[in-house]
Amino acid sequence: MLLLLRSSVRYSVAVFNAQTICKNEVISRIISPSLRKMTHYQTEERGRPNSTDYRIYFKTSDGKYISPFHDIPLYVTDEQENEIPSKKLKTDDQLLFNMVVEVPRWSNAKMEIATKEDLNPIKQDVKKGKLRYVANVFPHRGYIWNYGALPQTWEDPNHTDKDTKCGGDNDPIDVCDIGSKVCSRGEVIQVKVLGVLAMIDEGETDWKIIAINAEDPDAPELNSISDVRKKKPGHLEATVDWFKKYKVPDGKPENKFAFNGQFKDKDFAVQVIRSTHDHWRALVQKQAEAGEINCLNASVCDSAFKCSQEEASAIVQSAPSCGEALSVSAEVDKWHFL
Amino acid sequence: MLLLLRSSVRYSVAVFNAQTICKNEVISRIISPSLRKMTHYQTEERGRPNSTDYRIYFKTSDGKYISPFHDIPLYVTDEQENEIPSKKLKTDDQLLFNMVVEVPRWSNAKMEIATKEDLNPIKQDVKKGKLRYVANVFPHRGYIWNYGALPQTWEDPNHTDKDTKCGGDNDPIDVCDIGSKVCSRGEVIQVKVLGVLAMIDEGETDWKIIAINAEDPDAPELNSISDVRKKKPGHLEATVDWFKKYKVPDGKPENKFAFNGQFKDKDFAVQVIRSTHDHWRALVQKQAEAGEINCLNASVCDSAFKCSQEEASAIVQSAPSCGEALSVSAEVDKWHFL
Repeated sequence: MLLLLRSSVRYSVAVFNAQTICKNEVISRIISPSLRKMTHYQTEERGRPNSTDYRIYFKTSDGKYISPFHDIPLYVTDEQENEIPSKKLKTDDQLLFNMVVEVPRWSNAKMEIATKEDLNPIKQDVKKGKLRYVANVFPHRGYIWNYGALPQTWEDPNHTDKDTKCGGDNDPIDVCDIGSKVCSRGEVIQVKVLGVLAMIDEGETDWKIIAINAEDPDAPELNSISDVRKKKPGHLEATVDWFKKYKVPDGKPENKFAFNGQFKDKDFAVQVIRSTHDHWRALVQKQAEAGEINCLNASVCDSAFKCSQEEASAIVQSAPSCGEALSVSAEVDKWHFL
Repeated sequence: MLLLLRSSVRYSVAVFNAQTICKNEVISRIISPSLRKMTHYQTEERGRPNSTDYRIYFKTSDGKYISPFHDIPLYVTDEQENEIPSKKLKTDDQLLFNMVVEVPRWSNAKMEIATKEDLNPIKQDVKKGKLRYVANVFPHRGYIWNYGALPQTWEDPNHTDKDTKCGGDNDPIDVCDIGSKVCSRGEVIQVKVLGVLAMIDEGETDWKIIAINAEDPDAPELNSISDVRKKKPGHLEATVDWFKKYKVPDGKPENKFAFNGQFKDKDFAVQVIRSTHDHWRALVQKQAEAGEINCLNASVCDSAFKCSQEEASAIVQSAPSCGEALSVSAEVDKWHFL
C-alpha cells in the first residue's frame, strides 16, 4: 500500500509532479479533457533503419531528452493516468506500471534499451557484427507478445536470487504484454501485472513479467495467471515453449526455468519488480557495482549521473543522422522446425 | 507424361512460344544468361491500398496486360524455366506449376483474384461492405503459408466431385506454398506439388494444394506429404487446424474435410489439378456454365473472350487512380483464442 510513496516518488514522480524537489526540471502535464490517457513520451529516430547505427531516443511530451531506462517512472502515478490529480494511494490491485515496448508482437528484430550508451536509446542487438533477429520457431512468428522492459529496474548480476540461485542478467526486467493491440517500437504503455516466469538463461536469472496493456478491453477481467489460462487458452504454454526454444536454432541449449516452469502469480511478480527497482536505485545512487551500465539521466534527483538538457541534446545530435532503411535478408523470415 | 502437351500447350505456351498459332501476340522471352529464372510478370497497382477500390493488375515482362486467371500458363514450360529451349517432356516428378500469390505468409488481408472483373486483378474480398481480414486464430498469425491460386484452373460449381460429393467453389484452385520465403502479393512463383487436402466449406469442394516454391533450398528434399511430415513437423497438423477454425471467430461453423482430414499425396493432387484445368478449359471455350465468371483474356487462342491490348489497356486505365494507403483498424491484429 505504501509502495508508491516509499520507493518511487523521489525518482519517477519527479518528472511529473511540481511538488518535488526537482522544480527546474518539472515537465508540464498535458491537460486534455477529451483524452482519458495522455501521451507522455515521444521518440526520435537516428541512423538508418536496419543498420547497426539505428537508434530510437526518448523525449518527454514537451521535447526534453530522457533515458527510457532511468527517467521514465516505474509506477504510473495518478497525474500520469488522468487529468485529475489525486493523492490517494493505490492498492496492489490498482497498481499500473510503465512499460517500454522494445519488440512489437510478431516482429523479430531484437531491439532493446542500450544499457551501455548515453541516454539508453533503443538499438538492435548485434552478435558477431551482425544485427540480431530472433529465430521464428514454428508455430511462432517473431515475439508472441509486445516485449519490452520496465523502466527503473535492474537485474543486478551481483545479487543472487534466493529462489533461482542465480545472479541477474544485468538488464532492466523484461515484460510480455499479452494485450490485443500490436504496439509500436518505443511506445510507452501502462500495464497491469499478472504474474511472472523465472527463466534461467545460461546461469543468469531473467524474469519474464506477464502483464496486460491497461487499455486492453480484456484488462478488467484479467487479474491473475489463472485468468490468463481461462481467457487465453494455450497462451501460457506457448510462452514457456517460446522462451525454452528461441535460441535453439542459433545453436544454444534450451533455456531452463525455476519453479519447474510454473508461473508465479501477481503478488510474487510485484515483489520481484520491487526488488529490481531497489537494485536500480542502488545503481543510480552509486551503491552498486555498475560495470558498463550507463546511468546518465535527465531527472533522477539524487543521482550522481544527472545531466543537463544541453548535454542531453548534444548526445542525440552527435548520433548518426537519419537515412534510408537498409534492406533486410529474407533469412530473418525463415521458419525453424525443431 | 503427355500431360504437358495434351492439356496445356494450346493455352499457356501461347504466351511464350513463337511456334504457336498466336503469333501476333507472342511475347519476347527475356534471355539472361546470368539468371537461371526469368521474371515473367509485373504488376500494376490501382486505387488506394486498404480500400475497396484497390486492385493489382498483371502484365507480362514486356508490359502487355493479361489476366492472371486465364493468361498465366498453369504448367511451367522449359522456355519459362530457363533460357535453353527444350522439347523433352517432363515426368510428373519434374512438373512445376505457376502459382499466383494472393496472400503472403503471416498477413491476413483476404486478397484474391477477382474472378468476376475484367482482367481479374487481385482485390481484397469485401463482406457486408467491409474489407475482409481473416481472423488470427491462436497460435497462428495470418495465413501460415504463401497462399494463392493456380492459374487456368476452375472448381466448377456444377461438377460434383466423386470423392467429396460436393460441387466446386467457383474459384481457381487454392495453393499453400510451404517454402521459407515470404512472397509478395501478386508474385508469380513456380511450385512443386506435394499433396492436397480436401476441404469442404459450407457444402462446396475447396481443394487446398500443398506445394513448395521450386526455388526453396529444401525443395529438392521435399517430394511427398510424408517428406513434409518429417522435415516440417507439426506443419500439416497446423494446416488442418488453420482451415478448420479460421472462420469460427466470424460466427461460421468449423470447416469439414473429405478423407477424414487426411492429406492425399502428390499423384492424387496432380489429378485434381488436371481436372480443374479441364473445367477451366471448358469455361473459356464456352462449354461450361460460366455464371458471373469473367473470362476476358489476352492470349487464350481458342477462347471467345480474347481482347486486344487496346481494350486491356483501356480497362486498366479506367480503374481508380493510385492514392495514399488508408489506415487499417487495430482490430485486424486481434488474436482469437477458441
